[in-house]
Amino acid sequence: MNFNPLSTVHIQDLKAMVAADRFSTGASVLKLHAKDQSHHRGCLPEAVIWPTDRLEVVEILKYANDNRLPVVGWGSGSSLEGNPIPVKNGLVLDFSQMNCILDVREEDFQVDVQPGVIYQDLNEHLKYTGLFFPPDPGARATVGGMIANNASGTRTVYYGSTKDYVLKLTVVLASGEVLEMGRRVSKTSSGYDLPHLFVGSEGTLGVVVEATLRLVGLPEEFSAAVVTFPSVEAAGKAVSAIVRYGLNPAALELLDSACIELFNREKALGLDLSPTLFLEFHGPSIAYLSEIMGMAEEICRENGSLAFSPGLGRDERNRLFEARHELGEMVVRAHTDCRIQVLDVAVPITAYPDIISMARQEADAAGIQGYAFSHAGDGNLHLCLAGRKDETGDWERIDRISQRMVSKAISLGGTATGEHGVGIGKRKYMLAEHGSSLEWMQRIKSLFDPNGILNPGKIFP
Amino acid sequence: MNFNPLSTVHIQDLKAMVAADRFSTGASVLKLHAKDQSHHRGCLPEAVIWPTDRLEVVEILKYANDNRLPVVGWGSGSSLEGNPIPVKNGLVLDFSQMNCILDVREEDFQVDVQPGVIYQDLNEHLKYTGLFFPPDPGARATVGGMIANNASGTRTVYYGSTKDYVLKLTVVLASGEVLEMGRRVSKTSSGYDLPHLFVGSEGTLGVVVEATLRLVGLPEEFSAAVVTFPSVEAAGKAVSAIVRYGLNPAALELLDSACIELFNREKALGLDLSPTLFLEFHGPSIAYLSEIMGMAEEICRENGSLAFSPGLGRDERNRLFEARHELGEMVVRAHTDCRIQVLDVAVPITAYPDIISMARQEADAAGIQGYAFSHAGDGNLHLCLAGRKDETGDWERIDRISQRMVSKAISLGGTATGEHGVGIGKRKYMLAEHGSSLEWMQRIKSLFDPNGILNPGKIFP
Repeated sequence: MNFNPLSTVHIQDLKAMVAADRFSTGASVLKLHAKDQSHHRGCLPEAVIWPTDRLEVVEILKYANDNRLPVVGWGSGSSLEGNPIPVKNGLVLDFSQMNCILDVREEDFQVDVQPGVIYQDLNEHLKYTGLFFPPDPGARATVGGMIANNASGTRTVYYGSTKDYVLKLTVVLASGEVLEMGRRVSKTSSGYDLPHLFVGSEGTLGVVVEATLRLVGLPEEFSAAVVTFPSVEAAGKAVSAIVRYGLNPAALELLDSACIELFNREKALGLDLSPTLFLEFHGPSIAYLSEIMGMAEEICRENGSLAFSPGLGRDERNRLFEARHELGEMVVRAHTDCRIQVLDVAVPITAYPDIISMARQEADAAGIQGYAFSHAGDGNLHLCLAGRKDETGDWERIDRISQRMVSKAISLGGTATGEHGVGIGKRKYMLAEHGSSLEWMQRIKSLFDPNGILNPGKIFP
Repeated sequence: MNFNPLSTVHIQDLKAMVAADRFSTGASVLKLHAKDQSHHRGCLPEAVIWPTDRLEVVEILKYANDNRLPVVGWGSGSSLEGNPIPVKNGLVLDFSQMNCILDVREEDFQVDVQPGVIYQDLNEHLKYTGLFFPPDPGARATVGGMIANNASGTRTVYYGSTKDYVLKLTVVLASGEVLEMGRRVSKTSSGYDLPHLFVGSEGTLGVVVEATLRLVGLPEEFSAAVVTFPSVEAAGKAVSAIVRYGLNPAALELLDSACIELFNREKALGLDLSPTLFLEFHGPSIAYLSEIMGMAEEICRENGSLAFSPGLGRDERNRLFEARHELGEMVVRAHTDCRIQVLDVAVPITAYPDIISMARQEADAAGIQGYAFSHAGDGNLHLCLAGRKDETGDWERIDRISQRMVSKAISLGGTATGEHGVGIGKRKYMLAEHGSSLEWMQRIKSLFDPNGILNPGKIFP
């Protein structure tokens, strides 16, 4: 695809489409939209626009399409695979001012939102209804970004991913056409499931301007535990067994000793320096949760657990999950001379002990500082690898680890990305993972965005 | 689209592709594949083929595509909207001999199946693993048909629809190309979600030859109740309240007095002749279920219930659900001089009392015998309408009722079909429901099946 650079005429035209303070070509603004939280190198866009309604989005996209200007949607820039980096420069559409909660239909368990709403703000707003939107990627992600990426997180093992909560989408296509897809019902068999084609398409098919989300009731009771193991392999086996016995944990997070050391250093959590499971259950009563927790303890013991500490209070539990959510930043702070690559793969649950064991071995063998942590209950592994910024040797080794891990995951029937998306970093694995269905994805892309202006350089190799 | 009728050369060529006993142009065979269980008039296909492996499917479809022969996939013919009726004649691909359970990966909660497997047989096979495949349309449906239709049923309010259980599909396209889509993992953010484009596409985009399905653990305990109400409106309000209070029923079925009368007549169930809720909960312990059932009883009482009978034993509960699943056939038997139209709409749960009340009023006002029953917890209403076969006046009135009900459902934010699919009968509502996204569905259809040979005359107006 050939794109045009923004000319002074383009800039004048685009500027006229929004209020003066919602268009910028200022250096600091461009820099703030040059990269996400990943290790991928940034690229400067040529301009940033903050639309406030869908009509502006329509006008901007129509213009960009007619003039072959690349356009990237921007949520909060919290993604981890370079997903919104404007690699072809062009325009960034920043949705932070399109962040209204439009309608809460409490009795239908539904909410309509604009894409720029931060999911934690949505849940804060919903607090008094007794309902919530479960997917929780951790960072202050926008709903639009979560939809683009099919985001998930610590609660996904029980509650599912973003895709499981999208009922209806309003999307603006590259041509400026507004497309409403899906219905505000809990079930339908009416025609093709277009909304789920857009969920996880990373802004390459269209730009979400409104979404109807399904909500669920806040859990009555919760119970959390911390369990330590002599090795990640033993912990991995316990994870596999907990899932197999159908205990339905609401979180099942595995962290290696390197992560625990960071937690203790930054948060003074005083945890034992061993591979550790964070375990949480949601349920209707304390009695039920005690029963389930007893079964979990037995399974952990059979898999060689060192210590099982149940009965965490709400504060203690929240401190642990806050630390878990901040882990990426802690790794960055611990290695100020490094860039950090966060690997993200998922495998069938029986292959989980293999993949986590491989992660530790690969990092150790390469002499690269690695932090393995994971949404273990989903078979979803992350490995943070710290490479010194200017040491190409570090980055060659990190790339080799990454390639071997992803290839292994795919050979086990798994996926190159459990939740971070393809972005820039996983494009090279798409053919191995999807075979000829990748060509069909490309054809669908060409159907919806024939000029390829939407988030070019992503997903496809 | 212009199709060719089957010539003697076509017949010879197709015959040579399979064993002699797996191709037929016999009158009785054609008649058995002329219609499903709906009220729609049948159409004879020109030939029926029973493939036994995907390579045969590839060869047949390639030939049909090159020769512009219409092809319709056939499961068990249990659909209710004319979905597999070969309205353009041509070939029927009957999958009843491609019905192997290929691999049960118990510890990964996964199974690989061929499309002709009947879901009850699958669950029988899985019984000793403690796992099951939850969607339950009732009739002896095949997994392939369930995927084509995104089937659901009495358990969907708790367990979800077929779409929620499809991880990976192998599909043969019209061209004969074999497409593998999706991965054997519980989560992924890798590229476009192609499997879910095919789920619910009613065989218009491709033909499923293998599926990897997610399984879940059988519930530890269950508890069921029968509740009667003075009116469907009161029962509808109780349904809405039970959902709103987050009691998470595993089944929440509403039947009007006309249905109950049939049950008593055919099954001697001795139920009170009032609008009735079947209520079921699944959970980890009896104590938990008693607590939940107590709350359900209170909600029903507040909504004017006449009698609440909890504590149904397994046999009694099974008898009720068998009767519920046989309801369609009971209506047919009760009206031997009639054809029966089964209406299927779904609405947001708060609109459910309105729609069920309208259903009863419409049938009564038109003087048509109607049976209202529903997967009420999903806002999914069915209305069986009995029209005398040769009385065009009956059928004009039934069509008017149907049109008003569907239009009302759509105007309430609902859908023309909760679970029966579009087939023939709901095509005329697609534009009202989907607006311009219908054109995009059509474009996707043209992309995957440019000659339109796959199940022509369905979904699109």
